[in-house]
Amino acid sequence: MTETRRIVLASRPKGDPTLDNFRLETAPLPEPDSGEVVVRTIWLSLDPYMRGRMDAAKSYADPVEVGDTMEAAGVGEVIASNVDRYQAGDIVVGRTGWASHAAVDARQCRKVDPELAPVSTALGVLGMPGHTAWVGLNDILAGQPGETVVVSAATGAVGSVVGQLAVRKGMKTVGVAGGAAKCAYAVEKLGFEACVDHRDPELAQKLKSLTPEGVDCYYENVGGTTLEAVLPRMNDHGRIAVCGMIAWYSGKGIEDAMPLPKMWRTILVRKLRVQGFIVFEHMDRLDPFLREVGPLVKSGEFHYRETVTDGLENAPQAFLNLLEGGNFGKQLVRVGEGP
Amino acid sequence: MTETRRIVLASRPKGDPTLDNFRLETAPLPEPDSGEVVVRTIWLSLDPYMRGRMDAAKSYADPVEVGDTMEAAGVGEVIASNVDRYQAGDIVVGRTGWASHAAVDARQCRKVDPELAPVSTALGVLGMPGHTAWVGLNDILAGQPGETVVVSAATGAVGSVVGQLAVRKGMKTVGVAGGAAKCAYAVEKLGFEACVDHRDPELAQKLKSLTPEGVDCYYENVGGTTLEAVLPRMNDHGRIAVCGMIAWYSGKGIEDAMPLPKMWRTILVRKLRVQGFIVFEHMDRLDPFLREVGPLVKSGEFHYRETVTDGLENAPQAFLNLLEGGNFGKQLVRVGEGP
Repeated sequence: MTETRRIVLASRPKGDPTLDNFRLETAPLPEPDSGEVVVRTIWLSLDPYMRGRMDAAKSYADPVEVGDTMEAAGVGEVIASNVDRYQAGDIVVGRTGWASHAAVDARQCRKVDPELAPVSTALGVLGMPGHTAWVGLNDILAGQPGETVVVSAATGAVGSVVGQLAVRKGMKTVGVAGGAAKCAYAVEKLGFEACVDHRDPELAQKLKSLTPEGVDCYYENVGGTTLEAVLPRMNDHGRIAVCGMIAWYSGKGIEDAMPLPKMWRTILVRKLRVQGFIVFEHMDRLDPFLREVGPLVKSGEFHYRETVTDGLENAPQAFLNLLEGGNFGKQLVRVGEGP
Repeated sequence: MTETRRIVLASRPKGDPTLDNFRLETAPLPEPDSGEVVVRTIWLSLDPYMRGRMDAAKSYADPVEVGDTMEAAGVGEVIASNVDRYQAGDIVVGRTGWASHAAVDARQCRKVDPELAPVSTALGVLGMPGHTAWVGLNDILAGQPGETVVVSAATGAVGSVVGQLAVRKGMKTVGVAGGAAKCAYAVEKLGFEACVDHRDPELAQKLKSLTPEGVDCYYENVGGTTLEAVLPRMNDHGRIAVCGMIAWYSGKGIEDAMPLPKMWRTILVRKLRVQGFIVFEHMDRLDPFLREVGPLVKSGEFHYRETVTDGLENAPQAFLNLLEGGNFGKQLVRVGEGP
């Protein structure tokens, strides 16, 4: 093995991304620079936030430049190391990008314990999505037992963790997801009290009848019609954790969105708190999250689901599917062999 | 004196209110019921929130019913009392409504000290608007020295207090107000570093050049184009205290408002906290507010300005002017004689 394969941003999308926006390239195998490790990628994580990095505008972080490797977290095996605390053979999670091998800043890596759970979970239920869910529910929404929470993208990598944590907290937990199969899974496996299809023309009405005492917390992953249906249900002092807005990422549906003053009036009159957050600013909460959720995953009490696409070359299509809600649970790409 | 005069809601407005929506009536002088005092109104407060009470929809509180007296706080003299702690002759502030005399629940009254400042200030700088400003800046925005705050309706009853408090805190304080005279007053008397006219077609550009380090806190009284100009300036972890939205109260400008997804994206990417509040839920903060601001008003260090309309019968026109920004500082109606 003397070269790495990687997927670069070939061009910026106009609206929905297409396969043309990506290009597969090869390059020489990287050497570890000072403070770096070289990782052979086993699993690659695909997440909705990556859509934002494809645009020229700054979102949380700088955009991916045209010609650069697409950003991602991956799980892989250390094959070369320039730092003492990582040895060849260690399994780590880090910012590999969409690549078969990558030189990664060791400070942004974390060892993965293969005894705890399959190592792919370090990208999902025990990784950034799970951590995001835990921070959002506990720190941003400050959900309390007996309160009602609505979770959008309820079977997604984040939403499925929010839902299970909320149920365990004793919250009345209602999901919104895409299609009957996902809704059934939310109720039967994840423990949601109910789950409504976001494409249901009676979404708003159904949500109303499912939340007779109103909604105290809304975990927002999607925007769009789901947000519009939840908003009128918000109780006084309700909280909205703004974690994502996948319905609007590609500029679709913006003309049809409800006018801002309606949102503003509800914030004012119901005294809502609406808060955006990004998990990278809550790294001090990673350990408490792992201490709580790790054992629940190991014991099998906590459910998670993965959609696996084989081969780095298929990552672009898998990503397009993800943006359309075609995945079911955490979307992964299997890039290489491993535990 | 055997009767009271009062202004009732004659009909609900469609869009902007008109004089036809109000009616002057007379009624027998009320007797104090158990736990009540009867107050002869001296000063009546007019505030933008009253527009919301004229609609059938619930806002913070139930709407005023057609035929009922318009809601308001007033300062007046106790002329009859059924509770021990108030005597005839006491000056109090309470929920008199738009009326020359009113029976008021004593638990909702507070004695006013005529030695501290003119008693009309109990409706403005030392009353609900000042208290609102203090809670909004200290508790909701949590403004810190060195941060930049933008205050809309900067010379209004609330905004003028926010501005002076922010300047004293060592914040960079920028105002938005209607017209050159108000802007000049904001800078020269209230100490704002700068103030921009919200009707200026270059509002967004000017606000940008006045906030080179971005905006950490936005005290929101108005909505509309001011909100649209401030939003792109918000820094990471910025806070928006949603206190009012006078530009949208009568349903105007809603079609032209920016689409919700733009706001949502900024909340997400900049990790904003947007919070609505109502001062009545922060009564535990009334004393700390009065302890800080009372002495500053008494010593003359703190500025306030009043627009006085004479005669209860002129309250409807004064209220219409207020909604158009025709007042300058706190809008009062002088209803009777007093200190």
